[in-house]
Amino acid sequence: MARNITPRKENYSQWYLDVIKAAELADYAPVRGCMVIRPTGFAIWENIKQKLDTEFKNTGHVNAYFPVLIPNSFLQKEAEHIEGFAPECAVVTHAGGEELEEPFIVRPTSETIIGHMYSKWVQSWRDLPVLINQWCNVMRWEKRPRLFLRTSEFLWQEGHTAHETEKEAREETLKMLAIYKHVFEDELAIPVLDGEKTAGERFPGAVDTYTCEAMMSDTKALQAGTSHFLGQNFAKAFEIQYQDREGNLQYCFTTSWGVSTRSVGALIMTHSDDDGLIIPPRIAPTKIVILPISKDESTAENILLPKAKELAEKLNNSLGGLCVKIDDNFHMRPADRFFIHLQKGVPLRLELGEKDLNAGTVRFVRRDTGEKIDVKFENAIHEAANILDDIQNNLFKRAKDFREANTHEAGSYDELKKILAEKGGFVKAFFAGTPEDEIKIREETGGATPRCVLSHEGSGKCIITGKPEGRMTVFAKAY
Amino acid sequence: MARNITPRKENYSQWYLDVIKAAELADYAPVRGCMVIRPTGFAIWENIKQKLDTEFKNTGHVNAYFPVLIPNSFLQKEAEHIEGFAPECAVVTHAGGEELEEPFIVRPTSETIIGHMYSKWVQSWRDLPVLINQWCNVMRWEKRPRLFLRTSEFLWQEGHTAHETEKEAREETLKMLAIYKHVFEDELAIPVLDGEKTAGERFPGAVDTYTCEAMMSDTKALQAGTSHFLGQNFAKAFEIQYQDREGNLQYCFTTSWGVSTRSVGALIMTHSDDDGLIIPPRIAPTKIVILPISKDESTAENILLPKAKELAEKLNNSLGGLCVKIDDNFHMRPADRFFIHLQKGVPLRLELGEKDLNAGTVRFVRRDTGEKIDVKFENAIHEAANILDDIQNNLFKRAKDFREANTHEAGSYDELKKILAEKGGFVKAFFAGTPEDEIKIREETGGATPRCVLSHEGSGKCIITGKPEGRMTVFAKAY
Repeated sequence: MARNITPRKENYSQWYLDVIKAAELADYAPVRGCMVIRPTGFAIWENIKQKLDTEFKNTGHVNAYFPVLIPNSFLQKEAEHIEGFAPECAVVTHAGGEELEEPFIVRPTSETIIGHMYSKWVQSWRDLPVLINQWCNVMRWEKRPRLFLRTSEFLWQEGHTAHETEKEAREETLKMLAIYKHVFEDELAIPVLDGEKTAGERFPGAVDTYTCEAMMSDTKALQAGTSHFLGQNFAKAFEIQYQDREGNLQYCFTTSWGVSTRSVGALIMTHSDDDGLIIPPRIAPTKIVILPISKDESTAENILLPKAKELAEKLNNSLGGLCVKIDDNFHMRPADRFFIHLQKGVPLRLELGEKDLNAGTVRFVRRDTGEKIDVKFENAIHEAANILDDIQNNLFKRAKDFREANTHEAGSYDELKKILAEKGGFVKAFFAGTPEDEIKIREETGGATPRCVLSHEGSGKCIITGKPEGRMTVFAKAY
Repeated sequence: MARNITPRKENYSQWYLDVIKAAELADYAPVRGCMVIRPTGFAIWENIKQKLDTEFKNTGHVNAYFPVLIPNSFLQKEAEHIEGFAPECAVVTHAGGEELEEPFIVRPTSETIIGHMYSKWVQSWRDLPVLINQWCNVMRWEKRPRLFLRTSEFLWQEGHTAHETEKEAREETLKMLAIYKHVFEDELAIPVLDGEKTAGERFPGAVDTYTCEAMMSDTKALQAGTSHFLGQNFAKAFEIQYQDREGNLQYCFTTSWGVSTRSVGALIMTHSDDDGLIIPPRIAPTKIVILPISKDESTAENILLPKAKELAEKLNNSLGGLCVKIDDNFHMRPADRFFIHLQKGVPLRLELGEKDLNAGTVRFVRRDTGEKIDVKFENAIHEAANILDDIQNNLFKRAKDFREANTHEAGSYDELKKILAEKGGFVKAFFAGTPEDEIKIREETGGATPRCVLSHEGSGKCIITGKPEGRMTVFAKAY
């Protein structure tokens, strides 16, 4: 089988697209900037979704569904919000054979229409908090699309909550950020820095935006999830008011938070290698593929295949779900069969040959390290679970070590520029500048932006303004 | 608490809307014809979704995602298809600040764009069958919207499969119909008639359409799910071709099948009564609500509430998930608290009063019959499961008995008209007419249409044409 993946060192962007193509994760659609998420890619998204959804529900959130079309006038109500999203809107002007009186926008995000509904539902403090999440498609027209990372349509969840007090809303914002960090790190094996966004990087209409930032394997940053404290901005724009415990009319405090199909892009660019995709076991739709192998097709069919089925059933029972597949492509050469699963990123391969069967063993081959592990047939089920855990931990450790090795500190603006130019990666520096300063940095570093403020790392002298209240800020070029 | 639900006999349409409002299932959106599915309504849809999705996956189907926008030219490729959908299309003409060269249609269904992608993915018989399903939103502009039943945007699943042979594709069509029937009957407790649609009722572009038809509690019919054998119509329009086992180029045979948020409307109109919603236990997000009740708020808080929590935890463990809720609205009168859960359709209420506690018992109250059942505290967990099963079975039986009591047979066209005018309901008659005959019947009966052909009931003389090959067909007015 031909080598069909460009090495990362040669061309990282092409490598990324080649990995996606070889693993059949997604395709560009015949609609400019849109993608088709193919079954293997969608199954990864379904698993991410399920992990997040469970966390949301365990913390008291419920799902709902709001319309995909938003009246144009709604978007106009919050000034910063419309300024941020107007250039990316797709507009429905005709429907049911007629021109519409007022055009509709295909939702780029749903603060406005959800705010409108909350203003009807919320009357008293007893109706609060409202803790609603929505899983849906959104549209932000992209001039330079890239599969999973930037597409005109993408899938996501958007949580929208309304609270009595600022304190409660701020707690919610940070609670959801912590859930994102937990799911990224413990399920997707993607280490993330969690912290605040600088003023220039805030969500349009937010008071504060918090983010989970991950480092991709080319050392660029990727914003994997964000959580916004919206203050009373949207409550005032949409009149989300309630009667408080003393009988006075008050505006709510609201939050919103989201993770999208971008996270699949983050998964690909964190773990995969020049052979193709690598998926961490906890998020992998297929955790193990069993390959009965024999030169003789009848032996494979009649002796090895039944044994493989027995193993698959036991493994599925022990691991839960339908996460073990059998490869019975006996018409293909074993090397080609290995190659396919390598490219598809299946964490663990279980080879079952005649020799193995006679020796009473099976052979595991790890996707992350290539290591071969021979195990007695009767220990296979138990060992499989251990090896999968080990792969999960190893992938996380590998990614974290990589991030640490590519994170630097800069004591001055010159040093920041020098490190970014020579080494790339994450550069930490104290910063207390304005959005204008952020633009200047971006222009003078060929695209680096403040990704995340690490508040717990204290403060110091800003490398731009010299002010003493600079906060420890991570700068990087980003997707 | 005021009586806020119009009795069915007075005004069935208003009753339906009142039930939805009282149970907080959905609201009309500020977008013409669109709805907001509120958390309680959405949780029902999520359960329906989960039941169907499990069946799909167990029969080898996988999920994927295709773009919400479809190029206008795609819809034109299948002549009947565009004729059927053109009047209902919503059109995106502008995006990213510019007018588009070719307008996009917000998908009314996805045969066309999926067909286009299949033509790229399918090369050889080894790529077949393709068994893909999509969960998504679709848009069909509605002049006369009705919550859940007809909304300009709705949620659904659409399965799209491609096969080597007509036989396989026909088997798939019927397999999915059987899955729909199973989920409707065994999970939603909605009895359905499964059979073929007549020519006038077919999906635009299908060779044969099959349907599950349910009877609502006003004796009108509701099409709850459809499965289409598309022959080679879409394969030819989109060039879905494969090299067969002999090396010849062939067109695939394709199918499509769907169930939508309409099913929530069907659920409401099958089971609910003048007190409000009734949800069958297997599909109910909240299966049991526990109400600690005492005149003394401190007794309720300190003695009964801990006991309620203990019960809730045990019940959740035994029933699975978070399906048991505690009502701790001690500031409300017990009668008002009962009323809320009655209206929300919670299948089983568990009352925990001081008297019960002293007697070592709890009181169950069934939503379907109102029956009160006192059970020893230590038997509560076990009995709860039994009672829920009994409610599920009773709801199905009640609906099926109702359908049978309202199903009649007509030996002639005059008799058909007479029964429809005097009694309504389902009327069975032999029919071998044309789509023109179907229009005539609709006009002359004030709206009755052939809902479903019951092939297994043999054939006889057509009540319209007199031809001997009439098939047993169910006529009814329908939603």
